[in-house]
Amino acid sequence: MKYGFFDDAKKEYVITTPTTPYPWINYLGSQEFFSLISNTAGGYSFYKDAKLRRITRFRYNNVPLDLGGGRYYYLYDNGDFWSPGWAPARKELDRYECRHGMGYTKISGKRNDIETEVTFFVPLNYNGEVHKVVVKNTGDKKKEVKLFSFIEWCLWNAQDDQTNFQRNFNTGEVEIKGSVIYHKTEYKERRDHYAFFSVNAPIEGFDSDRESFIGTYNGFENPQVVAAGKSNNSVADGWSPIASHCLAISLEPGETKEFVFILGYVENPLEEKWESKNVINKKKAEDMIAKFSDGAAVDKALDELAAYWDGLLSKYTIVSKDDKLNRMVNIWNQYQCMVTFNLSRSASYFESGIGRGMGFRDSNQDLLGFLHQIPDRARERIIDLASTQLEDGGAYHQYQPLTKRGNDEIGGNFNDDPLWLILAVVAYIKETGDYTILDVKTPFDNDESKATPLSDHIKRSFDHVINNVGPHGLPLIGRADWNDCLNLNCFSMEPGESFQTTTSKDGRVAESVMIAGMFVYIGKEYAKLMEKIGNQAEADRANKEVSKMKDIIMEHGFDGEWFLRAYDDFGKKVGSNENEEGKIFIESQGLCIMGGCGIEDGKAIKTLDAVEERLGTKYGLVLNNPAFTKYYVEYGEISTYPAGYKENAGIFCHNNAWIMCAEAVVGRGDKAFDYYTRIAPAYTEEYSEIHRMEPYVYSQMVAGKDAGRFGEAKNSWLTGTASWNFVAISQFILGIIPEYDGLMVNPAIPASWDGYQVTRLFRGDILKITIKNPNHVSAGVSKMTVDGKEISGNIVPVFGDGMEHEVEVILG
Amino acid sequence: MKYGFFDDAKKEYVITTPTTPYPWINYLGSQEFFSLISNTAGGYSFYKDAKLRRITRFRYNNVPLDLGGGRYYYLYDNGDFWSPGWAPARKELDRYECRHGMGYTKISGKRNDIETEVTFFVPLNYNGEVHKVVVKNTGDKKKEVKLFSFIEWCLWNAQDDQTNFQRNFNTGEVEIKGSVIYHKTEYKERRDHYAFFSVNAPIEGFDSDRESFIGTYNGFENPQVVAAGKSNNSVADGWSPIASHCLAISLEPGETKEFVFILGYVENPLEEKWESKNVINKKKAEDMIAKFSDGAAVDKALDELAAYWDGLLSKYTIVSKDDKLNRMVNIWNQYQCMVTFNLSRSASYFESGIGRGMGFRDSNQDLLGFLHQIPDRARERIIDLASTQLEDGGAYHQYQPLTKRGNDEIGGNFNDDPLWLILAVVAYIKETGDYTILDVKTPFDNDESKATPLSDHIKRSFDHVINNVGPHGLPLIGRADWNDCLNLNCFSMEPGESFQTTTSKDGRVAESVMIAGMFVYIGKEYAKLMEKIGNQAEADRANKEVSKMKDIIMEHGFDGEWFLRAYDDFGKKVGSNENEEGKIFIESQGLCIMGGCGIEDGKAIKTLDAVEERLGTKYGLVLNNPAFTKYYVEYGEISTYPAGYKENAGIFCHNNAWIMCAEAVVGRGDKAFDYYTRIAPAYTEEYSEIHRMEPYVYSQMVAGKDAGRFGEAKNSWLTGTASWNFVAISQFILGIIPEYDGLMVNPAIPASWDGYQVTRLFRGDILKITIKNPNHVSAGVSKMTVDGKEISGNIVPVFGDGMEHEVEVILG
Repeated sequence: MKYGFFDDAKKEYVITTPTTPYPWINYLGSQEFFSLISNTAGGYSFYKDAKLRRITRFRYNNVPLDLGGGRYYYLYDNGDFWSPGWAPARKELDRYECRHGMGYTKISGKRNDIETEVTFFVPLNYNGEVHKVVVKNTGDKKKEVKLFSFIEWCLWNAQDDQTNFQRNFNTGEVEIKGSVIYHKTEYKERRDHYAFFSVNAPIEGFDSDRESFIGTYNGFENPQVVAAGKSNNSVADGWSPIASHCLAISLEPGETKEFVFILGYVENPLEEKWESKNVINKKKAEDMIAKFSDGAAVDKALDELAAYWDGLLSKYTIVSKDDKLNRMVNIWNQYQCMVTFNLSRSASYFESGIGRGMGFRDSNQDLLGFLHQIPDRARERIIDLASTQLEDGGAYHQYQPLTKRGNDEIGGNFNDDPLWLILAVVAYIKETGDYTILDVKTPFDNDESKATPLSDHIKRSFDHVINNVGPHGLPLIGRADWNDCLNLNCFSMEPGESFQTTTSKDGRVAESVMIAGMFVYIGKEYAKLMEKIGNQAEADRANKEVSKMKDIIMEHGFDGEWFLRAYDDFGKKVGSNENEEGKIFIESQGLCIMGGCGIEDGKAIKTLDAVEERLGTKYGLVLNNPAFTKYYVEYGEISTYPAGYKENAGIFCHNNAWIMCAEAVVGRGDKAFDYYTRIAPAYTEEYSEIHRMEPYVYSQMVAGKDAGRFGEAKNSWLTGTASWNFVAISQFILGIIPEYDGLMVNPAIPASWDGYQVTRLFRGDILKITIKNPNHVSAGVSKMTVDGKEISGNIVPVFGDGMEHEVEVILG
Repeated sequence: MKYGFFDDAKKEYVITTPTTPYPWINYLGSQEFFSLISNTAGGYSFYKDAKLRRITRFRYNNVPLDLGGGRYYYLYDNGDFWSPGWAPARKELDRYECRHGMGYTKISGKRNDIETEVTFFVPLNYNGEVHKVVVKNTGDKKKEVKLFSFIEWCLWNAQDDQTNFQRNFNTGEVEIKGSVIYHKTEYKERRDHYAFFSVNAPIEGFDSDRESFIGTYNGFENPQVVAAGKSNNSVADGWSPIASHCLAISLEPGETKEFVFILGYVENPLEEKWESKNVINKKKAEDMIAKFSDGAAVDKALDELAAYWDGLLSKYTIVSKDDKLNRMVNIWNQYQCMVTFNLSRSASYFESGIGRGMGFRDSNQDLLGFLHQIPDRARERIIDLASTQLEDGGAYHQYQPLTKRGNDEIGGNFNDDPLWLILAVVAYIKETGDYTILDVKTPFDNDESKATPLSDHIKRSFDHVINNVGPHGLPLIGRADWNDCLNLNCFSMEPGESFQTTTSKDGRVAESVMIAGMFVYIGKEYAKLMEKIGNQAEADRANKEVSKMKDIIMEHGFDGEWFLRAYDDFGKKVGSNENEEGKIFIESQGLCIMGGCGIEDGKAIKTLDAVEERLGTKYGLVLNNPAFTKYYVEYGEISTYPAGYKENAGIFCHNNAWIMCAEAVVGRGDKAFDYYTRIAPAYTEEYSEIHRMEPYVYSQMVAGKDAGRFGEAKNSWLTGTASWNFVAISQFILGIIPEYDGLMVNPAIPASWDGYQVTRLFRGDILKITIKNPNHVSAGVSKMTVDGKEISGNIVPVFGDGMEHEVEVILG
């Protein structure tokens, strides 16, 4: 069952009912000001940091589910009132539509012959959310309606805001001037920032005190002010400051009126904070408001935003016979990758935005999905990440976006972390050809006095694995590898204790076959890079270590039919047929094969067949099987989840991509693409009532076959799934692969395909690549011509002329 | 305006409308299981620790205000449905009433000829909340109705529960057996506890998944299951587990049916956790349920609870002509003192229950109000508190109730803390005559190897002041004294930084005149105690130090018309006529005079007149004047609040009591009692629409004259106001004062009073004290007879015979 449709021409998902199975959201903003917005305008905004600089209040896990806060509009028409986005008023609409587009959301609703459309977006280079509200009288009688706006201020620190009521109920302060309501809580003391909510028209009234607007015992669905059709002109004094305008609007039949509301954020230098005693300096806000004084200015900014996104999405485009594939590759998967670049894991409808910094491994992997879109900012992100690395090659697991410093509270010792940095650097150089990044003097632990070239950082990443191996010569797992919930050194018996930050054992025994697989996969890339920059000695050393590790994997890391997952602290196998539960795990299968293990001797194929048999479901591949049904203190968090959820045999979509890649590596394009379609949102749209999350973006997890709610997704949007699935489809399956000296073409596709076209902007060149599959094979390039001339091999050279070049590839 | 009335005979406050100005709550439980319950049954329950062992979920700062969670009942009658407590269904009732009593709350509502009464309480020695539901058909036709129950489980850690959705939406687990719904999230791993919700009757259906019960887009006011009149029999699998029963009830005209619901908590030993694989051991829950299998058992437990409270409240009772005074002294103030004993500051409608441990100074002061009711538990509390003291006499500012260990996160250096321990010990011995407490070996910093007798602890408390004095010889303030918001060593410029845990200066300059006042007041008590136990040398030493401090106060701590508040880090006066804002503070005035400063030379009277003139308002005395209108980095948090709120010139009711005490010390009973009536809840009841908080208990703060909402209270229930106002009225005003060798009678009352009777149970004796005021004086005992015999002085001796003794006191 579907709740909307893709409008590919407009790059929009169009939602046709307000009561989707879960609020379906979009993200606004791409620089410093960000918003989450649902299909009924729920959600919130923040500046840079979702915890410390929250602008509007939001209640997670609310009852009713969707009324936790948002930017709300109410139309009042002669005693009747409703919201154009259905919520919060929840009066039945004659027509409802929500269009989630690239960095904007447009919600429209009609009732009583009044059609209202609100377009929400954050303009480029602007610290605010702009709402263009268009109200039209579609009837044949004159209408006198009122439009009420509503937002609720968060008292800046989102965590404190929801816990420290003894203080916070006393501190709220506002100023009202003309049609602008300013939120200035704590501005008089240590804050140098305020927020405002404005409208470009005279107002009939306003409210800034929540209780005065809503009423003590009313809800967002029926504020007393809206029901009465008249503002109370309340001035907040403690309690919960809000901002609400009331506009009286007169509309002749067929007449349309347009209003611009702005929710903005301003910082002032200390010496310019005040206009006069206790009166804030409003200059910057007034400039921001002036910028969008009418609808035309807004439309221009919307056009600029569209051009910005067209630019980002133009780097990789496909034309195929499969509309779902096209919209995933051309629009939604890349869009989601950019959102993970902007937000990391900070704030979604499942991440309350107060808990997490930028993950080291998360961000390095995210880079793989977005760096072709904005290589400059990818470069900056790489340096930020590497600057938090430690001298021994290890890494802080997270860093704080405001300070960019490593997070002491979480610490390090997640032993896969360092390797992802190598992969990100390699991908960056392959995309850009910019080797100078290797020379950037980069600090350790943010200490500039310890700065060394980035090339030294990735060497230490490589060596960190070699220097930390266990009894079998496999890499020590540390606190956890990529699977945060496989905690082999934790041994927690304390209720509620964090598995990630608790380490009870010294930990020189538990080993990770997954890190070993990563090491051969990424270590080879490291060796290639060293060779590329002329450091043959280092390349040789690296290749030797990789080769050694590969042997160790095949000797101690292969269980007969698939790869082991790990050895636990007692030296016992994890993910072995010997185990009663958790006999097979997904991660090591994908990464070992991506590293080339078992290719020659058939073990890779055998492994992948076992994966399909034991982990495969119609909704994707589960993480492990059988699910754990009791707590294993020696395994940690993975065994705490109910069977089929999250890391305990859930379909963890991130790692599904590694199996797609592995299938591509062994040339099985049909299987690779089959796995792709099982979890790619455009394909899951058909059963949205089961999947429940947005059908235009990936979710982190889909409940596995052991779960009571098999097929139900959770934690949409901010997941490494986005980048890895883009890598899988764009590089491993469609086979358009950046290499140091050009763009490699090496597809692994369903044999039934006739072909497809990819346009790839690569180092300034515009490569129009047509892939033809006359013999219906899955893999293997038999012939390639560039601008009509056949070339040997399958790498399109770099022209560097910024011109369009035609590439034709024949498979067979 | 009133929203109910006091029913003194039943010791109840009766609320007659569900829409009170704010939810008006009560506390259930007195040992380990506690609940907050509002007049519409909102609130939540926890076991021991409001943060770590939260049983039901609650949303603070909710919209609608009252629908954050609770124990909800819905009646369904042929398509119509409502709640007997109005909320959550909010259908109009023909009759509504809520009776908050001693440890129980009874809510009843009538609609459609169905009268429903629910009595909520926590039986003595029982880890659960019992709800007796009585449904009566008051009409003349047979009724077939359905009763739906509802509670929502918290996933144990209340903070994690509201932030960590990525995990928590996956972990919820329940079991259903018969009419019992068990909540067992995380029981399979490290938890050894579960909760349950039962009813003593067969059920027609149940629900345990919130969304199935409520509906994706419904609220607590209209759950889809209730609207349909039929349960979904849902079994929670992640998301939000709840518990709801559906009972089909057939009622003849006039017929009544009674049901017992139990919300219980159970811990099992590790080896007895399971009945069979993944099936929890229900033995203890079944025993708890069996205990209240019918209404008669419930009624018996209610009688026992009433007897328990009658016992606690019988220790001090008054009969006077003033009903308001009687109900404050006999019922509500003592009840509130017991609640602060049980809860400290952990959980109210303003304290989210996740932030604070037991305060060192809070708990020592709370003791003064409850120790006569339960001296044994007061003794235990004193030892717990003293065990967190540090070897230098300083103290951790808080300790955690589960571990009883000092809270490292907050730390110490609140330099008033140690002195309150002396006052608590002195009060305990005066009440009980139990000097053996002084010999109890008590650790420092919970380290048993460092244990010394309690007498040594209070010596170190005393010496901690002497050892930490500043340039004028006045005590150093440290991080803050009693006024947490006067932060003279903090100098914070970082938004959101805690003023209490940040110390930017070494802090050997800023001094507190308030601590100096405390030192002379409490130091004298220390000296008296030393004398009493025969340690004359220590008594002399102490008296010498006290005398020296008194001289220093009069030389450096008096500003001409009142006492200074402090010296700041620059050695500048705080609370002086020289200052532009904050010229006078309340705390030092009260405590210096309680310590005897300025009594002989008239400076005390002068000071108290200045207090009345500058701090007095009709709603109580403000903390300081004029209010601060800008941020003073050298003063800290006090200047961050808007003028008139909290510590910035709010009416902070706790310290109002010190002025009452000081007025009593100088013999001005009229003024003392006048101040008493300005803030005592029974007197503020008349203007509940302004005051807004419960009219039966004190609030921490009432907005002061500089505030926009002058007279509005906040943070009711858990405040040191309860104990200090009880000390002020019971000892300083009514003048019934425990002393080492007997009960002193020394009133300071309005001259207009003719007299009053107090019954005081003191060390086993029952003293019936009649005070007569034939000459209409305010203070001074002219004659006292005990059992008909005149005695000299004003101390009733200890008989120790457990008998009743008549005491007659003539003032004049």
